[in-house]
Amino acid sequence: MTTIQDIADKLGISKSTVSKALNDAPDISETLRKQVLETAVALDYTKLRRYKKTKKRLCILIEKENIEYEEPHHFAYDIVMGFRQLAEPAGFYVEIVPVDVKLQKNTPYDVFMLEHDYVGSFVLGFSLNDTWLDDFKNSHTPAVLFDNYVTGNPYTAYVGIDNDEGMELVLKHLTNLGHRKIAYLSGSLGSYVLQRRHAAFLSAMHRHGHKTTAKNTGCSYCLSECIEKHLPKFLKAGMTAIICSHDTIANASIIQCQQLGYKVPEDISIIGFDDLPLAEYTLPPLTTIKQDRVELGKSGFYALSSLLNNIPISTFLLHAKLIERKSTYNVYIEKKSNAL
Amino acid sequence: MTTIQDIADKLGISKSTVSKALNDAPDISETLRKQVLETAVALDYTKLRRYKKTKKRLCILIEKENIEYEEPHHFAYDIVMGFRQLAEPAGFYVEIVPVDVKLQKNTPYDVFMLEHDYVGSFVLGFSLNDTWLDDFKNSHTPAVLFDNYVTGNPYTAYVGIDNDEGMELVLKHLTNLGHRKIAYLSGSLGSYVLQRRHAAFLSAMHRHGHKTTAKNTGCSYCLSECIEKHLPKFLKAGMTAIICSHDTIANASIIQCQQLGYKVPEDISIIGFDDLPLAEYTLPPLTTIKQDRVELGKSGFYALSSLLNNIPISTFLLHAKLIERKSTYNVYIEKKSNAL
Repeated sequence: MTTIQDIADKLGISKSTVSKALNDAPDISETLRKQVLETAVALDYTKLRRYKKTKKRLCILIEKENIEYEEPHHFAYDIVMGFRQLAEPAGFYVEIVPVDVKLQKNTPYDVFMLEHDYVGSFVLGFSLNDTWLDDFKNSHTPAVLFDNYVTGNPYTAYVGIDNDEGMELVLKHLTNLGHRKIAYLSGSLGSYVLQRRHAAFLSAMHRHGHKTTAKNTGCSYCLSECIEKHLPKFLKAGMTAIICSHDTIANASIIQCQQLGYKVPEDISIIGFDDLPLAEYTLPPLTTIKQDRVELGKSGFYALSSLLNNIPISTFLLHAKLIERKSTYNVYIEKKSNAL
Repeated sequence: MTTIQDIADKLGISKSTVSKALNDAPDISETLRKQVLETAVALDYTKLRRYKKTKKRLCILIEKENIEYEEPHHFAYDIVMGFRQLAEPAGFYVEIVPVDVKLQKNTPYDVFMLEHDYVGSFVLGFSLNDTWLDDFKNSHTPAVLFDNYVTGNPYTAYVGIDNDEGMELVLKHLTNLGHRKIAYLSGSLGSYVLQRRHAAFLSAMHRHGHKTTAKNTGCSYCLSECIEKHLPKFLKAGMTAIICSHDTIANASIIQCQQLGYKVPEDISIIGFDDLPLAEYTLPPLTTIKQDRVELGKSGFYALSSLLNNIPISTFLLHAKLIERKSTYNVYIEKKSNAL
């Protein structure tokens, strides 16, 4: 096992200097402190130091740009709460760490974790171009990624809902209502979870015997492009239902359809994903796939404690659930009443 | 909450008769006992009775025809051990229950569980045509299915290794060794896990820019058909590597190739899946994807305890791991030495 002496030998400095650097002594320069930490990580010193603590420290790393967590109506609020609900009674100390691009560029993930003496992290809101998402490919400190997936690193796990199941529930629901012309409107595929949902849509459509072409799929980084370009295209092509990659797009789509003179759901059914608090208050209230955020937070802790117990979990998915509200329509009824 | 009175009222019998039936009293006929149990299940009485016990009972249900567990070299032995290693210290009583077709046909899963007072099950070796696999679609007693998946029931979870990751590791390994003509030889697609592996092969090949046709894929229920029909087809089509859906097929393929005059790995590389004890002893020793069976057993318990804690987990996958032995060959080296 790596000792302080090993780090000292590697850097050609004294043991006491290494110890001071690891303990943030004020007479050690920032440059030297960083060098010591990076060497410690390179020599796999991460574990040794930690076993000395009685209460182990976990952190929830939150990408500030992409996800909000401070207020009860914010997406990540309940996720954070669910995680703490299990982690704290289990004897862990949990800290929330907002993360930005600068921190990720300046400090490798493993070094950051050692520096702050965290034994594991729950990672929220990272997109595919975040620097640490590259770090996670080879990191050694357990990390559970919400809605992100890394291949081949036994120290990382992916937590989220079962998007394939969610899409299957949506397709079954729409098929039972008589819909055959179904479109998918998605935000940017630069996020892992939207890639998953897109793939889930394609394979669910295939399973149900529907075709997918450029006519009934559209995705865009800009919400305005989604509703001004793709949505009218779907309507023109005679689609009777639109599945949206998340509730925000679904909400905007309802409004846009109504502005274009289409009734929701009588002329066009719209379904979301996520079940944000907003979904109950759209007009009509939105049928959507629920991600239970408290349970996702708890799952984050379950997955992290598996990793900490050396069970190399790769994927931990929660069951998806269809919440039926008022934004989908039974085409059979419509046909019947038209015939009368 | 349902009471014994509710069951009595429903059946028009006395409370004491219900109680006797639930407690296997000898003066109750088998027909009546079954009727009481089925009514209890229909009224969702499952939970009430169980909370009276101090030590909760779990079972490991094993389909006798498909999987062996009694001896250390049997596939399921370590899975069972891993499960017990976590479940028993956590205060559960664990029983192993061999299951056959007859039991499944005569007794619905929920009724069986109530009858024996089990709060949850870990299910091994079931194939897609097992009757209880239908029961699991609507069952209410937590069940964790090893290598089986059910859509839309929050009381069931799927545990296994990450087959997509495994296939990606295999494709990366073969691509790095210079292979471009790669085939996939599979057992019957009547099992869920082999369907998953097959789909994982197709998408990994697609990601790596390789085509998949009838020329480089083959599957069959009979091992003999695999190695007498598909294998020669692959060799004739100039394949340089064959991925097998499991180690047993890989072992048979090595022997068959050698009998047909091909050297393994110099003429043809062969890769397995599972890392059975056998894999170390094939000639040459088999490169394969490891399923750590002790960890799978532990994952089974993790997933089951999540379900018992009302975390509706759908999928719990372990990281796959490539075990490099001697059955794959570097095509670049071969080309170089041919050129000399």
